[in-house]
Amino acid sequence: MIQGFNPRTGEPAGQPVAETTDADVDAAAEAAAAALTSWTGLGDQGRARALEAVADALDARAGELVALADEETALGETRLTGEVARTTGQLRLFAGVLRDGSYADPVASPAAGGIAEIRRVNHPVGPVAVFAASNFPFAFSVAGGDTAAALAAGCPVVVKAHEGHPQTSVATARIVAEALAGTGAPAGVFGLVHGFEAGIRLLTHPAITAAGFTGSTRGGLELGRICAERDTPIPFYGELGAVNPVVVLPGAAASSTAEIASGYAGSLTLGAGQFCTNPGLLFVPADDVALSAAVTDAVGASSGGPMLSERIFKGYEAALAEIEAHPAVTAVAAGTTGAGPWGATPRLFQATLKDFAADLPVLAKERFGPAGLMISYPSVEDLLPVLAALEGNLVGSVHGDTASAAGVAAARQVIAVFERTVGRIVWNGWPTGVAVNAAQHHGGPWPATTVPAYTSVGSAAIRRWLIPVAYQNLPAELLPARLAD
Amino acid sequence: MIQGFNPRTGEPAGQPVAETTDADVDAAAEAAAAALTSWTGLGDQGRARALEAVADALDARAGELVALADEETALGETRLTGEVARTTGQLRLFAGVLRDGSYADPVASPAAGGIAEIRRVNHPVGPVAVFAASNFPFAFSVAGGDTAAALAAGCPVVVKAHEGHPQTSVATARIVAEALAGTGAPAGVFGLVHGFEAGIRLLTHPAITAAGFTGSTRGGLELGRICAERDTPIPFYGELGAVNPVVVLPGAAASSTAEIASGYAGSLTLGAGQFCTNPGLLFVPADDVALSAAVTDAVGASSGGPMLSERIFKGYEAALAEIEAHPAVTAVAAGTTGAGPWGATPRLFQATLKDFAADLPVLAKERFGPAGLMISYPSVEDLLPVLAALEGNLVGSVHGDTASAAGVAAARQVIAVFERTVGRIVWNGWPTGVAVNAAQHHGGPWPATTVPAYTSVGSAAIRRWLIPVAYQNLPAELLPARLAD
Repeated sequence: MIQGFNPRTGEPAGQPVAETTDADVDAAAEAAAAALTSWTGLGDQGRARALEAVADALDARAGELVALADEETALGETRLTGEVARTTGQLRLFAGVLRDGSYADPVASPAAGGIAEIRRVNHPVGPVAVFAASNFPFAFSVAGGDTAAALAAGCPVVVKAHEGHPQTSVATARIVAEALAGTGAPAGVFGLVHGFEAGIRLLTHPAITAAGFTGSTRGGLELGRICAERDTPIPFYGELGAVNPVVVLPGAAASSTAEIASGYAGSLTLGAGQFCTNPGLLFVPADDVALSAAVTDAVGASSGGPMLSERIFKGYEAALAEIEAHPAVTAVAAGTTGAGPWGATPRLFQATLKDFAADLPVLAKERFGPAGLMISYPSVEDLLPVLAALEGNLVGSVHGDTASAAGVAAARQVIAVFERTVGRIVWNGWPTGVAVNAAQHHGGPWPATTVPAYTSVGSAAIRRWLIPVAYQNLPAELLPARLAD
Repeated sequence: MIQGFNPRTGEPAGQPVAETTDADVDAAAEAAAAALTSWTGLGDQGRARALEAVADALDARAGELVALADEETALGETRLTGEVARTTGQLRLFAGVLRDGSYADPVASPAAGGIAEIRRVNHPVGPVAVFAASNFPFAFSVAGGDTAAALAAGCPVVVKAHEGHPQTSVATARIVAEALAGTGAPAGVFGLVHGFEAGIRLLTHPAITAAGFTGSTRGGLELGRICAERDTPIPFYGELGAVNPVVVLPGAAASSTAEIASGYAGSLTLGAGQFCTNPGLLFVPADDVALSAAVTDAVGASSGGPMLSERIFKGYEAALAEIEAHPAVTAVAAGTTGAGPWGATPRLFQATLKDFAADLPVLAKERFGPAGLMISYPSVEDLLPVLAALEGNLVGSVHGDTASAAGVAAARQVIAVFERTVGRIVWNGWPTGVAVNAAQHHGGPWPATTVPAYTSVGSAAIRRWLIPVAYQNLPAELLPARLAD
């Protein structure tokens, strides 16, 4: 049985949910495969209407969903209400992508020099397995971005629920399934399974043609390996770990020390630091003592929150213990511990660039939670090779000032490194808060993601679930409708 | 030492080439990494000119290259001259892709509701390792499609030469390197290594960020595993095995029996059957005795050629021995054996649909060479589930007639299955001969390719080597030029 817990008390939240049996996992995968043709057959307009119906249904029951999720995650009503809105906004965004139609990328090359005409268009990859994340019980869960993008692409979806919010998952899935059924979508186009073993069985089921995952590097590595070792390997889109470096350039904080300090502490502690975009590394000029002091004060004045689960809390504590014991690191600030048995304490550590660079495997690794490491660098010249040596990240942020030529030059140097190592570059801002739009890229080199060319957020996320088919010399009546003109 | 052989005689062809030392492999990878910024910095126009210079240089020395390749591959002057033209055509195609510029896919989402503006554009993934194939000594080798696409994308390239044509590889690489140097391209933007161990070392070098491969399923699986198990895993684009089913629909051969029979035999035996698009499986109506007889006669009247290497020849012989020994298969035709010690004999085998379906692991597997299996099917209804059960293929071909409603309906059913299982669908034609243009998709589900969304042929092949970067809130002077307007 899968039991959710209330992070504010550590007590069980709601009834336990049964792990899905092997037979039921197989049935869900096979139902998804059986639904493929009729789901695709609804066409762009039909699927757009279905996605909008799901969005409307979730909005209509947002209060109930938020209450369930708040009990299971303690993320709070404000955040969770906003997250439901983001989730239904995503569904409507993909409805718009379908109405626009250009996602199908139709291309024609005319016959030439004895070579027949070829036309090409995107098709859905097939039934998709989506692994829900713990830290976004709506936006990266049952009806989250992967589900919306895959359904939009024409792919039936089977979600493996996250064990951290089983009741929220069940309630969301019921609403989704009912709304889809009400729009004429085929049974089987959406399914939900519970449990670790069920997830593995789903991933290895022959009917599943691709998978999406958001979670830990270790878990993602294992699931990716399973996908690669199937009799028929399938694409695995994993978003794994990130520390999202922030660089404050020399002089940037001159007139905005307080703003940068409070902005950093706010981004670091948002959601108890449980974001893939959390800014775990802050690079500050060694000679800007005022900035280091202000950041230290801001983190010290910040508050943690209850973490999502005992497992995450224990992982955070272990990560803190490791960095606290590091001889090159100084613990400089601790904020107010969050409520409940798994309350996180915001922490700030400090190290020199040289010491940091000497032990990247320990010091540059992700500490999931509100723990920042502030690294004092003597010069941009010294900083650049260390930045370049970091593993891939979702986001790199730069705080700078373009008023001087030196400021522009330094910014360009850091941006050039980030262009090789992160998926998104933020100027004078913070990495948390991921806009859901056409230009978004929520990806990045390993281990931020397993497939760096694909985003999991924004309208381009539909590309994960599409594969092209070329048609050579076909008469119009045999071409797909959107190629036939 | 790596020694090429003349397939017409089995004797050594030219001097042996030394295997690249570990130090030289590392130097090539590091030089590629060092060249990245200046190669990208040449811009679209500069890289287009460089690709054209390479094409011009190869064309100018085509005679010499063809002579070398003919000695090492015995593919013949006509085919090889055409292949050099295809290769230089590919380079010029990508120059056109660069001048067009839309490959960079720039997108902007304006600021809205407190969310900062985001702009996104594609960047080169970084230095790329390209593994050359045996069967296209130009078009899928040193200056082939992967090299052209990766250089176009802005990626330095290190090629691992195929051991089957070392002298051709060395000569081609020299011409490429000289031409690039003449256009101001940085040293290191193009390198060549020789030997199995050198290839593995290249693939695991930290500077390499992606890899392309065309070859056997077994080899591709192993290289893909190496890419996945690196400290920093990298994308691996492998084109592995395919049997490329051809379906002749009922009635389709009524007026074109001879044409279909000769067309099939021609496609099957082209290049001694050594194509990834070779039509290994031919599905014919069981009641069309005239067609079966005509195909049998056509293959019996065909001629093989010298195979590329002893290894490929022995693999072909082993595959023939396996299928000949199969109790459900009848050997119905043998053409004229090709010249030399590794001369291939065109072969045709026959089985019923029921027997074929009962042993797909043996009967549906690739037999690299001019061996066809003709499968007699009782009805389209019976055929469809067997087609659907085949593994992924690069190409599926349908011969049919749209004059009748029944003909259209049957064609649609087969096409619907192929849309799930192949990368390209050909109507009343043959799978060999891959057009290099914008609409081409030379890909397909596993094991045809490891990443089904990507093509290795045509202008879309540049996508293999691109990753997006999003820019949030950047002032114009810090944006890449093509996002700054």
